[in-house]
Amino acid sequence: MDRQNLTLLTDLYELTMMQGYFEHKEQNETVIFDAFYRTNPCGGGYAIAAGLEQLIKYIKELHFSKQDIEYLDSLHIFSKNFLDYLAGFKFSGDIYAVPEGTIIFPREPLVKVIASIMEAQLVETAILNIINHQSLIATKAARVCYAAKGDGIMEFGLRRAQGPDAGIYGARAAVIGGCIGTSNVLCGQLFDVPVKGTHAHSWIMSFPDEYTAFKTYADMYPSACILLVDTYDTLKSGIPNAIRVFQEMHAAKIPLTNYGIRLDSGDLAYLSKKARKMLDDAGFPDAVISASNDLDEYLIETLKAQGAAISSWGVGTNLITAKDNPAFGGVYKLAAIMNEKGEFIPKIKLSENTEKVTNPGNKTIYRVYEKNTGKIKADLICLVGETFNQEEPLLLFDPLEPWKKTKLSAGSYTLRELLKPVFQNGECCYESPKVMDIRSYCQSELDTLWDETKRFVNPHQVYVDLSKKLYDIKIQLLDQMSEK
Amino acid sequence: MDRQNLTLLTDLYELTMMQGYFEHKEQNETVIFDAFYRTNPCGGGYAIAAGLEQLIKYIKELHFSKQDIEYLDSLHIFSKNFLDYLAGFKFSGDIYAVPEGTIIFPREPLVKVIASIMEAQLVETAILNIINHQSLIATKAARVCYAAKGDGIMEFGLRRAQGPDAGIYGARAAVIGGCIGTSNVLCGQLFDVPVKGTHAHSWIMSFPDEYTAFKTYADMYPSACILLVDTYDTLKSGIPNAIRVFQEMHAAKIPLTNYGIRLDSGDLAYLSKKARKMLDDAGFPDAVISASNDLDEYLIETLKAQGAAISSWGVGTNLITAKDNPAFGGVYKLAAIMNEKGEFIPKIKLSENTEKVTNPGNKTIYRVYEKNTGKIKADLICLVGETFNQEEPLLLFDPLEPWKKTKLSAGSYTLRELLKPVFQNGECCYESPKVMDIRSYCQSELDTLWDETKRFVNPHQVYVDLSKKLYDIKIQLLDQMSEK
Repeated sequence: MDRQNLTLLTDLYELTMMQGYFEHKEQNETVIFDAFYRTNPCGGGYAIAAGLEQLIKYIKELHFSKQDIEYLDSLHIFSKNFLDYLAGFKFSGDIYAVPEGTIIFPREPLVKVIASIMEAQLVETAILNIINHQSLIATKAARVCYAAKGDGIMEFGLRRAQGPDAGIYGARAAVIGGCIGTSNVLCGQLFDVPVKGTHAHSWIMSFPDEYTAFKTYADMYPSACILLVDTYDTLKSGIPNAIRVFQEMHAAKIPLTNYGIRLDSGDLAYLSKKARKMLDDAGFPDAVISASNDLDEYLIETLKAQGAAISSWGVGTNLITAKDNPAFGGVYKLAAIMNEKGEFIPKIKLSENTEKVTNPGNKTIYRVYEKNTGKIKADLICLVGETFNQEEPLLLFDPLEPWKKTKLSAGSYTLRELLKPVFQNGECCYESPKVMDIRSYCQSELDTLWDETKRFVNPHQVYVDLSKKLYDIKIQLLDQMSEK
Repeated sequence: MDRQNLTLLTDLYELTMMQGYFEHKEQNETVIFDAFYRTNPCGGGYAIAAGLEQLIKYIKELHFSKQDIEYLDSLHIFSKNFLDYLAGFKFSGDIYAVPEGTIIFPREPLVKVIASIMEAQLVETAILNIINHQSLIATKAARVCYAAKGDGIMEFGLRRAQGPDAGIYGARAAVIGGCIGTSNVLCGQLFDVPVKGTHAHSWIMSFPDEYTAFKTYADMYPSACILLVDTYDTLKSGIPNAIRVFQEMHAAKIPLTNYGIRLDSGDLAYLSKKARKMLDDAGFPDAVISASNDLDEYLIETLKAQGAAISSWGVGTNLITAKDNPAFGGVYKLAAIMNEKGEFIPKIKLSENTEKVTNPGNKTIYRVYEKNTGKIKADLICLVGETFNQEEPLLLFDPLEPWKKTKLSAGSYTLRELLKPVFQNGECCYESPKVMDIRSYCQSELDTLWDETKRFVNPHQVYVDLSKKLYDIKIQLLDQMSEK
C-alpha cells in the first residue's frame, strides 16, 4: 500500500551478511541457493508452483532508492562504502525456476539462484515470501476444485485475507489452481481473470421487502441473476420470492440464462435438495444453486457425498488463508560454492532429521512419465549436465530408503526437465504466460496425477528420487561431515 | 506490488449493488454499518484493534482512475451514467473507530461507517481486509509476548507471510501487540520500528570453519553480536566456538554489551540450560541466549515452565500467519437506515444462532473500569446520546442471559468511550499515532486485563453488555420479525 519497490522487503540479516561479504571479498563467491519445500500442504500428495511472475517483477525492480539508502544509513550499522555499493546495486545473477502451474513435490528446487553470495542472500526473503504464499493458495485451490468434481469454484475471500496483497495475489493463485474467477475486482483488473458476484444481505435489508429487492436486482442484471435467499427464511420466503421473480422474467420474455439462487447459511445439503425440488417444480430445472459459508475441500466433498444439489460454490476464508495449513514452509538453502577454478563444490546442511538434510550441488529436475498413461511415475533430481537415454532402462530408488528400487524398461517412460532459465546475468529471459493460460496448463498438469495422489486422506506420495551420481555425492559429503 | 491506490480492492458485488442504489436513488439512504467480530482469536479472552492507519489511508486515496473506469467499462455490466458518477467519486461519509492498540471484545463495533449506502458498501471489503488482518496479528503477538513474561519477542516471519503486505503490515501489527522489533527492513523503514537480525546458517557454511565465520561477524558487529550456534553441533562446536570469540573480544577490550548466542533447532529446553552453564562457566553470565524455530505462545509457555534459560525469542511462521487461527472473522453489518425525517431506524440481521443476531441502531461503546484496580469490569454497548452518571449505581446484565445481573455501586467504577471520530463528511479528523506510541498504549491497555483473561486455557470472558435502551430495541425488533 505504501510503496512501489520492494527492495527493502528483506530480513535485516540479509543486509548485515551482505556487508560481511562486501568487506571480505574473498568470501563473496558465486554460490547456488535452492528454494524448496519439505511437506505437502494440508497432508496432500502434491503442491502447485505459483508466484513466479511476481518474483520476476521483484528482481527486475530491485534497486536501492535514495530514501532506502538514507534509511539504512540511519541504522548506524552500515559503512559508507557498502551503502555506496548498494546505491548502484543491480541483480546480476542467474535464476532458474519451475513454471507457474506446475505440479511439484517436496525437496525439489523450485527456484535456483546462481549469483555472488551477497546477491543470493539479499533476494532470499522476498523469493520465499512470494513463492510460499502463492504456491500455498494455488495448492489449496486445486484441492477445493478437486472436491467439487468439475463444479465451478469462485474465490470470495478478500475480506478475510491477510492484507491487500494476500487478497490480490491469493486470488491470482486461486485461479491458477483452478478457481473459475474471483470476487476481487483489483485482481481481475491486474491479471485479466473473471470477476463475479451478486449481492449481500444488506441489499435485501435495505429494501422494504425481499421480493422488491430481488425484482430490482433481476431487472438490472437479468443475465447474471443469482439471488441470495437466506436473509429472512430460505424455504418460506427466499426461494418462493426468487421463483416469483424468475416467473415474472419468464413472462416478460427476458431470457433466463445464468440465473438461480445462493445459499449462505443453514444446512446446505438439506436446503439445496429442497431448493432443487422447488425450482424444478416451478419449471426452472436449469436454475443454478450456488452455496457459500465457510466452505473448504472437506465440506464440499461431504456435501457432494450427501447428494447436495449444489453446482456452484463460493469459497472464502478457508481458501484465501489456507486455513488448516496457512504456511507453505518453503526454505532457501546453500547448495554449492564455486571454487577458484570455477567449479561448484557441493555443500550440504546437516540435520538430526534425515528429511531435513539438504541435497547438494548444481541440480535440475526431470519428471518421469509413464508413456502409456501420461501419468507421473516419479521425479528425478540430478546434477546439471547428467543425461538420460529414454531408449535405455531407468533405475529409480528412494533416497531415504535406497533399497526400494524400481526399474523402468526402455521405451516405457518419457522425461521432461522442469527448471527453466528465468534470469541470465541479471537479464530476464522468461516471459510469464497470462494467468488464464497458466490455469489451463495447471489443469493439464493435474491430469498427470492419479486420483490416489489427489485424494485428501492418505494420498499416495509420488517418489522424488536422486540420480545415482547425486546420491553418491550426498553420501560422500555426509561421510565427510561425520568424520569431522 | 503492482498498484498505488486500492479503490478496486473490493468485491464485485459492492459495485453491482452500488449501481443498483445509483439507479434507484430512493434506496440510496444514509445508513450505518458496523464492523465487528464474533469470537476471540485462538480461544483467547480478548483481541487488539489494529489497522486503522491503513484504513484511513485507503479512504483518503479512494478514487477511480481513468484506468479503473476503463476496466469496469470492459466488464459490460455498468452503465455510462454510473461510470461517470464513479469517475468523480469521493468518500463523503463519517467513520468512527476504536483506536489502534485498544483491547476489544466480540460484537463491539470497531469501525462504524455512516454514509449513503452506496458509499458504505464500496468500502466494506477493504475495511474488513485491513482490520481483520492487523487485529489478528496484533492479538497473536500480545499472546506470544504474554507467554514470554517480559522477555523480548522479535518478529521474524516475513518469508512465511501470506505475501508482501502480510509481512509488512503483519510486522507492524506484531509490534503494536508487543514485539520489540522485526527482521523486516521495509516495515522498519515505513513505520520507524526497530529492526534486528544476525546471520543465517549459510553465513557459517560459506566460511572454511565455524570459528572463522563467528570471528568475522563479531569483528564487524561487536555491539550486536548474537552468534547462531547450531549449524554443525550446538554443544560440541557452536557454543565452544562462540565462547572462544567472546574471550578474544574480551581480551581485545571490545565492550561486550549486546552479545550471546541463538539456538534454532534441537531441544531448546535442554540446549539452553547446557548453553547457560557453559557461558556462565566461561565468565559470560550476561551473554544472551535467544531461540527460534517454529515457536508460538504455547511452546514458549512450556519452555518457560521447564526452566529454559532463554531470554530472547524470535517468532516467525506461527505469529505472522496466526497459524492456529489465521482469520479474524470480522464482519460488516447494516445497523440502521435513516428515514425521511432524518432519524435512524434500527435494523437487525436475524440468525438461527443467537450470537449471530446483530445489534441494531447507532451505537457507541463505553468501557467500565473498576475504580480501585483500574481493571476492565465490562463493556457497555449503548445508543449514541445515552449518558451514564458515574455518581449513580450502574446495572449491568448479559444480553444473552439477561437474568445474570451485576450492580456496580456509585463511585466504584469509571467509564471511557471507545469509539473516536475518524472521518466527518469525508474529511479525516484523526491523526494516527506513531507505531511505537501505539505499542506503548497497547501495553497499558493490556494492564487493564486480569491474568485470568489473558491466559490461554479457559480464559475468563469479559462481559459485553447492552444498555437497557438498546436491549429493549433489539427485543422489540426480534418480536416484530417473528410476527411477520
